[in-house]
Formats: sequence, C-alpha cells, structure tokens
Amino acid sequence: MNKIVFKYLGKVMMMYSFLLFLPALVSLVYNEALLVFVFPAIISFIIGYFLNRIHCKDKILFSKDGFMIVTLSWIMISLVGALPLVLSVNGLSFVDALFESVSGFTTTGATVFKDVEVLDKSILFWRSFMHFIGGMGILSFVIAIAPLSRNDKSMYVLKAEMPGPSVSKLVPSIKKTLFYLYAIYIGLTLLEFILLLIGQMPIFDSILISFGTAGTGGFSLLNSSLATYSTFSKWVVTIFMFLFGVNFNIYFLLLIKDFKSALKSEELRVYISIYILSVLFIVINTYSMFNSMSEAILEGAFHISSLFTSTGYSIGDINIYPTSCRILVLMLMIISACAGSTCGGFKISRLIITVKSIKRDIIKSIHPNSVEIVRFEGKKVTEEVMTSTRTFMLLYAILIIIILFVVGLDGFNFEQTINAVFCTFGNVGLCFDLSSFSEFSNLSKIFLSIGMLLGRLEIFPIIALIKGFNTK
Amino acid sequence: MNKIVFKYLGKVMMMYSFLLFLPALVSLVYNEALLVFVFPAIISFIIGYFLNRIHCKDKILFSKDGFMIVTLSWIMISLVGALPLVLSVNGLSFVDALFESVSGFTTTGATVFKDVEVLDKSILFWRSFMHFIGGMGILSFVIAIAPLSRNDKSMYVLKAEMPGPSVSKLVPSIKKTLFYLYAIYIGLTLLEFILLLIGQMPIFDSILISFGTAGTGGFSLLNSSLATYSTFSKWVVTIFMFLFGVNFNIYFLLLIKDFKSALKSEELRVYISIYILSVLFIVINTYSMFNSMSEAILEGAFHISSLFTSTGYSIGDINIYPTSCRILVLMLMIISACAGSTCGGFKISRLIITVKSIKRDIIKSIHPNSVEIVRFEGKKVTEEVMTSTRTFMLLYAILIIIILFVVGLDGFNFEQTINAVFCTFGNVGLCFDLSSFSEFSNLSKIFLSIGMLLGRLEIFPIIALIKGFNTK
Repeated sequence: MNKIVFKYLGKVMMMYSFLLFLPALVSLVYNEALLVFVFPAIISFIIGYFLNRIHCKDKILFSKDGFMIVTLSWIMISLVGALPLVLSVNGLSFVDALFESVSGFTTTGATVFKDVEVLDKSILFWRSFMHFIGGMGILSFVIAIAPLSRNDKSMYVLKAEMPGPSVSKLVPSIKKTLFYLYAIYIGLTLLEFILLLIGQMPIFDSILISFGTAGTGGFSLLNSSLATYSTFSKWVVTIFMFLFGVNFNIYFLLLIKDFKSALKSEELRVYISIYILSVLFIVINTYSMFNSMSEAILEGAFHISSLFTSTGYSIGDINIYPTSCRILVLMLMIISACAGSTCGGFKISRLIITVKSIKRDIIKSIHPNSVEIVRFEGKKVTEEVMTSTRTFMLLYAILIIIILFVVGLDGFNFEQTINAVFCTFGNVGLCFDLSSFSEFSNLSKIFLSIGMLLGRLEIFPIIALIKGFNTK
Repeated sequence: MNKIVFKYLGKVMMMYSFLLFLPALVSLVYNEALLVFVFPAIISFIIGYFLNRIHCKDKILFSKDGFMIVTLSWIMISLVGALPLVLSVNGLSFVDALFESVSGFTTTGATVFKDVEVLDKSILFWRSFMHFIGGMGILSFVIAIAPLSRNDKSMYVLKAEMPGPSVSKLVPSIKKTLFYLYAIYIGLTLLEFILLLIGQMPIFDSILISFGTAGTGGFSLLNSSLATYSTFSKWVVTIFMFLFGVNFNIYFLLLIKDFKSALKSEELRVYISIYILSVLFIVINTYSMFNSMSEAILEGAFHISSLFTSTGYSIGDINIYPTSCRILVLMLMIISACAGSTCGGFKISRLIITVKSIKRDIIKSIHPNSVEIVRFEGKKVTEEVMTSTRTFMLLYAILIIIILFVVGLDGFNFEQTINAVFCTFGNVGLCFDLSSFSEFSNLSKIFLSIGMLLGRLEIFPIIALIKGFNTK
C-alpha cells in the first residue's frame, strides 16, 4: 500500500479529534461527563499525528489509494466515534457502540438503544452530530479545510466518497465546489433550525433534529421519535427531509439563477413523481385507520419523506401498513432519492439509467438494426456506464443476500430479517416490526455495520468501476 | 403480424386436441365423465383447423414470429387445458381453472384445490400429464412430429421456447436433436416409473408422480403430497428430481460415451455443489426437529431436490424451517437448476456468467489495463452475452416486483406474498405458509398466471435478446 494513504488517514484523524470538542461543549453546558469526549479526542489526535509523520517520498495519489483512504477513514472514524458511547453508557458492549457509531456516520439511524431518553444530552448530541458530519462525507470535510498540494488529486478521494453515479464538479476547483456544497448544506440546515424554532420546538431538539434531517440520519432524542411535536414541526421536517433528498447540483443551479436547467432535471422529475405517487398509494391504503384525512396525509407524506430519503424519523406506527405498502416501502428504501444528495440507497439516477438501458435492449432485440441511444439528463449514456450500473445493482443484491443469510441465523422471522438488512444497507434505520437492534447477535451486528458502510460508500470497488476514475 | 404465425398456431392446436384423448382414456377406465375431454378436444381441433387454413404466401419464418408463435401457443393451450377442469369440477371458476392449467403446463404445480383427493382420477391424470407435456415445451413436441419445410426455420421457435441461455444443438438436425432429448426425457421417466413400481407404489400413482418429476411440476394426487409413500419411493423421487435438474446435454454426452466432457461441465459441478451445501445447511438447521438423523437427511435432500429443481413435491412440513433456511429456499427457487433441463428459474449457467462478469469488472476496476477474459464451459463469453444476462436478471427482478405489488393488495402477509410470487414465477409451486392458491383474488391469480408463463418462457423478448437470434 502506498504510504500516502496513512498520511491522509493521519490528517483525517487529527481533524476529527477537534470535532469531538463540540459534544464536549454540550457536556459542559449540561454538566455531564466531559472526559468521554476529551479522551477519545486525544487518542485520535495522537494516532493521527504519528500516522501523519510517516515519511513518504511519493506524494502522488492514485485512484486506488483514493478508495483505500476512504474505506480506512470511515472505519477509523467509526471506531473513534464509538468510544464516547462506550465510556458514557454503562454496560454497553463495544460491538453495540460500534454499530451505533457506524449507524451515526453512515446516516442510517438504526439504534441499539431501547430507551434513548436515559442517555446524556451530550451523547444525544454526538449521535445526531455524527449524522451531520457523515451526511456530507468524512473526507469532503477534510479536503474542504486541508491545504491541498498543487497537483490536485484529492478529487480521487472525493469521487470515491460522494454518493451517486456522477460527481459533476460545479465549478472547476474542488475547494470551490465543496464550498458551495457546504454552503447549501449548512444553509438548508440553518433554515430548518429556524423554522423549527418558530414552531416552538426547544432549541436543543431543533438542533439535533436539523442535524438528523440534513444528514438524512434518523437518530432521535425521544423514544417516540418525532411523534410528540407539533403538526407544524412535523410538516417542516417532512419538507426538509424531502429537500435533502434532492441532488445538491439543483440547488447550485438555483443559486446561480439557472432555473431552466434546474427544472429540466430528469432525476428531479422522477424523484417528485415517485414521491407523490408513493404518498398517494400510502394514503389510499391507510386513511381509514386515521381520524381525519389531514392526519392521514401528514403521516403518509412524513413517512414517505423519511423512508424514501433514507432518514428514518417517524411520527406514528408504520406497522399498521398493509402488505402492499410494506413492499412499496422496501423498494423505496433500496432505491432512495437523488444522487448527489445525502441519501443512501441505489439512487434514482441509477434506476433511470437501468430502466432505460433495459428498454433499449428490448427494443434492440426486436429491431436489431435500430440505433437506440440512451440519454440521461440530455447526455448520451455510454455503454460502460450502463454495464457498470447493472453490475452495481447486481453486486448490491448479492451483498444484501449474503448479509441476509447471516442475520437470518438469529431467529428473527423472515420479514424482520429482510427489514433489518434493507433498512441498514439502505441507510434508512426505520423499519417494520423492529424498534431496536440490540437483540441481534454480535455477528449480525457486525455484518449489519459492514452493510451500512457498504451502503453509504456505495460498494467500494464498484464505485471505482462506475465512475471510471480508474480507467485512463 | 405474419400470417404464418396463425398457421403454426393452428397446427399446434390440432395436435394438442389429440393429446386430450389420453386422459379421456383414463376416464373410460375409471368410468368417469368422458365428454369433459372430448369436447375441448373437438373445439381445439376445429379452431386449429381453421387457423391452419389461413392462406399465406410468405412461408419464411422470422425470429420475431418465433416468439409470437410460442407466446400465443402457450396461452391457447392453457385456455384449452382449463376446459376439462371447468367442465369436471363443480363451481370452479374459469380464472381458477386457468391458473391450474397454466400451473400445469408451466410445470409450476401451484394449485387452487384445497382437496385434490375428491377430483376425478382422469382430472388428476390430466393435471400431471400437463406437467409432462410442458416439461419439454409445447412447441418442441410439435416440431418433433410435424413435417418440416426445407428451409428449416423452426429453430427460431425452438430457441424461443427452450429453457436456458444456450440451446446447443446436439446434432446438426433439429429433428434428431429433439429425438435425443425426448429419448432421454422419456427414458428417465420410464426408469423412475419402474423404480416406483418396484417400491410397491400403485401403478396410477407411479405414472402421475413420474410425470410430475419429469416435468419438474409438482401436482400430486394426495393432499399430503408424497408424505405417505415408502422411504424407498421418497428416495427414488429425490434422486429423479435431482436428475431432471441436470442439463440434458450431459445425458447426451453420457449416451455417446463422452464421459470426460460430461464430468467437466462447470454448470454440473456448481449444481452439485450448491445442492450438497444446501442439503447440509438445511439438515444442520433442522435435524433437532426430527426423530432420527436419517429422517432429517431424507427430508432435507427431498425438499432441496424439490425446491431447487422447481418441482414442488413435499414429504413433510417445510413451515418448520427457520428464517435462514427460508432465505436459502427463496434463493434456490429463483436460481433453480441447470439450463437445458425442465426446471424454471434463472438457471445456474446464468448465475455463473453473472458472478464471473461481476468479478471481472471488479478486477478491471482495480487493474484497468489487465485483460480479463470470462470463460464458461471452456468457451469465451462475449460482452453481449454478459450484458444481456445482467439485463435478463434485472428484468426478472422488475417483473417480480410488479407482480408483488398486485398480489400485495390481497391482504396476505409479507412473507406469504413474497412466497406466492417467488414460487409461481420460479415455477416451483411449493412454498411456506401457503397450501392452496384459491384464496387469492382473481386479479392476483391472473398476475400469478402471467408470472408462471413469463418464468417458464424466460421473459420472452429477453430471450430474443440473450440468445441473440435476432441479431445478424
């Protein structure tokens, strides 16, 4: 392995040690144990410092280093992120803490806690803050603030981490691209925070829920998730969950006032269509279980926002859903929202490319001499992209099946097993007939954690394949 | 549409009218209603006669005509096959009869009858005989006995119907190929029949069960399926179900004493490996529920033979299976056994090609300049075959999802819904937590019937695609 990988990793760990001071601040405010954050921060800094000091002559970053760095960074950060949990919560096993930490950074939001209300405020803050960090990616943050060498190969790292099949640089420079992305990310989060405050949600709750919405995470600070908040707050979260499922490029286009291009986006149109149809389907199938139509619509819209964008908040019991709604939800979980958003899953753009390429193949089989060009967002999709998208989908399926087998050994029933795997692999965190993941065996928790990482990082080596950053 | 399609369809219907005389004979022997078979036979013959008289100048068969003929033939024959059931069974709706008939010809074996023991012997015979006919395909039989024109384009029809990604003609002539295939098919069936007789199974039962095994169907003549027969008979059926899951080309190679090529078959090796591992997995997970190890092994081997080859016989309660076994069974149902056998499903050869092409893509993403050639059965797999195999798999998944949504509306629980769809689409017929399909709505029954046909005919237009018989 290229030593530059360790150097990079060292930088990541040093920077992350500083992020732990934010929850430490919270623990000061609430008079809680401070050391649970300071101690991991110090460890992380020391390890990072020594890794960063490794001498390496070769400073050129290759694409394969890119995904080595990303994989190792996510694993290390998850390990560090688990420490405050282990130190703060009595009797919490390390595997459980790691599951929770991976679930946090990957913005899954599946929890091992049956009762989150007994946790320290600072720990609740840390859980939601992990969502906020993980939403934009661990490395994008490092690249955004770290000094870059002149031959700007960090794009490899960024490409390996950013979700979706196409990282189109908004502006020529990486730093500027990241600046805009973070501006959009933080701007939207702030807006939600303010709106929640207006809706008279307590400040602490507003911060945490805004973090969780932004990262499409789903950890909540109440056992009932968001059920007890006002209708206004629920609608705010519904809308913002939806908004964080949109490709950030769209917001950039809106910022530069290119409304025409923004509205022309195929992915956005399909996203909105699937969203509306899904809400309709859910409302039609469940409205009889509610007191009023407006309640049914709110519940439907909220939960589709939550499940489709892989967030995982809830405001009511989704276990009332009949079978057809459950099947729909499973599909939405796996597809998830737009590329270039903070969501998990397969992404709508890949779905569109796959469906179009299948359609093309069928037409070609009937009219062999026809020339069918597959277009996405107005551009021609190359054969390689189509092939690799299909491969991605199949590998996705194979990995899910492997995890299913392991988790299947735990004695949960068929539907619970399927749900547990889909909602972790899709980084959703909310699913039917399961509220906590604590009962799963350690082996299952480890496999589910791997699943969350694979889901978030979009099955690593395959990214290389899809984005073609490994080909000349 | 080319008029030659109707001419072909006419031939098919005329020939099939004669097949109805076999169950008619049975009804004579058992003194049951004769007209229920004679009447449909006459109708089929008359329609066939007039279709065949349609005048057409153009006698050249194009590939697209090939799959038109196959699709229409299967639909017509299923309609005709439903008539004896409607006429014989009081109060049976036409949709139910059609479901049963489609289930018969597609060798699925899913039934709408809660009590099969009250049915006429001749009807029981007809149900199993449909399996026997459907196993080898409706059109292969017509082509085998019909006079062929000089320019031998019936291969198009045959290719569209035969299961598996590669119809390798065993010998240059279609007729001879079919002769060998039928010889193997009938020979194995006869052998099973004789062995069952030796095991002191009644003649009538032996015939029907041999039919069902040969076609990998699964209709039984007792409500308990095969549970009440002797251990010897159960082992015989176990072995023959396994044997009918083998690519018939292997038997041909054995016939011409080319043992080396036969044993070298990759697909055969993978088939045997998956089979043994699956039986082991089931036995390990269930042996504690049986009185003896030998009983556990018999049950495991029997049910894996049955579910893996898409037959669907049972000798005990598979509902005792824990979740991991259920997941395994679902996978086996969808994959199914070898290409070129009478099984449904995706086929092992496609699985091998898919896995190898994914592996190749991953290697290529890491070492972009490496030249990786994917080989199957010693031959290079072209890019087109790999792409189309993946497309096939994805289209398979999409179709299953569509049917899932429709069947999901029926109010069965999640697992029952998944099982019902998988076991019909995979042409298996046996599944967990469901014994009869009578409770499903008519809409679901129609969609499940379409699923059985799509499963059996391997998603029609895709065949064209995969076999590339449409490309020059």
